[in-house]
Amino acid sequence: MKQLDDKSLLEAFRNCERRALARMLTRVENKHPSVLELLDSVYDRTGDAWRIGVTGPPGAGKSTLVNRLVIRYRASDDLIGVVAFDPTSPFTGGALLGDRVRMETIGRDPGVFIRSMATRGHLGGLAVGVDEACDLFDAFGHRKVLVETVGVGQSELEVANATDTTLVVLVPQSGDSIQAMKAGLMEIGDIFVLNMCDRDGADEAYRELVSILSIRELDHGWRPPVIRTVARDGGGVEKLVETIAAHREHLVGTGMLEQRRRNRSAAKTKRLVEDVLSRRIWNAARRAKTMNRIASGGSPYQISQELIDEFYEEIHREQAHAETERT
Amino acid sequence: MKQLDDKSLLEAFRNCERRALARMLTRVENKHPSVLELLDSVYDRTGDAWRIGVTGPPGAGKSTLVNRLVIRYRASDDLIGVVAFDPTSPFTGGALLGDRVRMETIGRDPGVFIRSMATRGHLGGLAVGVDEACDLFDAFGHRKVLVETVGVGQSELEVANATDTTLVVLVPQSGDSIQAMKAGLMEIGDIFVLNMCDRDGADEAYRELVSILSIRELDHGWRPPVIRTVARDGGGVEKLVETIAAHREHLVGTGMLEQRRRNRSAAKTKRLVEDVLSRRIWNAARRAKTMNRIASGGSPYQISQELIDEFYEEIHREQAHAETERT
Repeated sequence: MKQLDDKSLLEAFRNCERRALARMLTRVENKHPSVLELLDSVYDRTGDAWRIGVTGPPGAGKSTLVNRLVIRYRASDDLIGVVAFDPTSPFTGGALLGDRVRMETIGRDPGVFIRSMATRGHLGGLAVGVDEACDLFDAFGHRKVLVETVGVGQSELEVANATDTTLVVLVPQSGDSIQAMKAGLMEIGDIFVLNMCDRDGADEAYRELVSILSIRELDHGWRPPVIRTVARDGGGVEKLVETIAAHREHLVGTGMLEQRRRNRSAAKTKRLVEDVLSRRIWNAARRAKTMNRIASGGSPYQISQELIDEFYEEIHREQAHAETERT
Repeated sequence: MKQLDDKSLLEAFRNCERRALARMLTRVENKHPSVLELLDSVYDRTGDAWRIGVTGPPGAGKSTLVNRLVIRYRASDDLIGVVAFDPTSPFTGGALLGDRVRMETIGRDPGVFIRSMATRGHLGGLAVGVDEACDLFDAFGHRKVLVETVGVGQSELEVANATDTTLVVLVPQSGDSIQAMKAGLMEIGDIFVLNMCDRDGADEAYRELVSILSIRELDHGWRPPVIRTVARDGGGVEKLVETIAAHREHLVGTGMLEQRRRNRSAAKTKRLVEDVLSRRIWNAARRAKTMNRIASGGSPYQISQELIDEFYEEIHREQAHAETERT
């Protein structure tokens, strides 16, 4: 499939060839020039997948929980997709944890498609639009897409915004709920999972979490429940699956699903437009010129204003030229 | 100062009126239209402040450490600025921790200017360019600017990129270094602070941290040291102050300071330009039109392409009009 053109790639994708999905995801990751067009071509096949974000601090057992959910969902024979954001490190040079375990449990099931995607240098959010990745899984025919975050900052919000049900996974640990609240996790969760509930202090942590959540405003009548799990041995996973289904029913029944998906499309449109503009303005010549001016001590505030003026002038010349060509 | 015009504001700022600094910071926060021009007007006064980022997970004692550093630095009678990012919560409605304590210790010193700034909904990074805020403190005459993060994700990286010396504050806790590594903190620290070193397990945590850092590549000969502190009673703070001074000497001596500041100006220029373009393209009319098209089920991929085409056309018409006016 090395030299596949867009048309053949789309055909292979519509024929459900796994390699075509992999190739499309790579194009999204690499911001291939034809990506808007390719995604637009499969957009009418999206809408059926339920997108589940799995967030929470590092070490809460998110990977283990995702594996459990995949095994459980596969019992109904649907295709399941997993997007795992992988905090590869420039100085350790690879994934840190969990991936080997994952591959040994669910990695060999042909009904499960797992894709690791890079984060933008750890803290800078996700390198790829997780929403576009979910659209591809969705259009390909996956009925559940699980998106597992790296557990830090920006990526949590991006994933919550791109998914239908957001799970926030916490562990019983003194003050953990307070820290999660400070980190903003309390606001993005549709369902809270208190994992490793066989640990000491689990009952206390559960009460603390329920108490903190009781002050959160209801989201159209939905009070985020707290589900106790022991992902390692599967404890509580059935209850979690039921709760995810209940949340889905809630979103569909209240019309919230439609609203959420509209907001998601709006945010995506904003991001896509800004991405195209950004790549357009920061061509190699302009980057080089900017660096030179900064190196010679120019004020970034003045340089910014001049770059904007120049950019508008360039667009103008180009459009004027295109008009002349047409007439 | 309610109706202050730009000229009077700049004059008050240059006369070191604290209210003028506060007002300028507010304009930066609110993205006031004249902000590029105002910042450009004071840019030639910047360059003398040493900018210290204080990052690390929530609960590591960053606020206490910042207070200690401020008290210590005030001993030399320099003006000290503090930017504290405040994770105000839409559902608790206020700052969570620390602020009252802070005001009771350093808040009454007229040589200390403390500014709390909001984060963009917790996980979405900082609402304001911390770099612009530091420029204002710098131009006003502050000789140290301490920037304290909320301890989650995106904001850590933004602060590290905007400061000269980045402290990563950790506490002795099993696996804390591993989690910090996974969260990317290991890569952004110039100096690591192991705080609460009177806790059990501090020696082990220290060894673990030193061992993990030993595999990090040297940054032009600088191996990030680990300083043990007990910020609560001031233990280790003197050593930390010496180490910050040593890092400054290192950056100046190797020419790295100049390079870092150039990179910072480049990143700032990029951000400022994109911010102006973004506010330009997303005017009220275009936002409304986009929402309507999405509500009627349009593909975000197609809408994005059309918005870009329209935007270029608009710029073209505007520039053509301006040309006609000039002739």
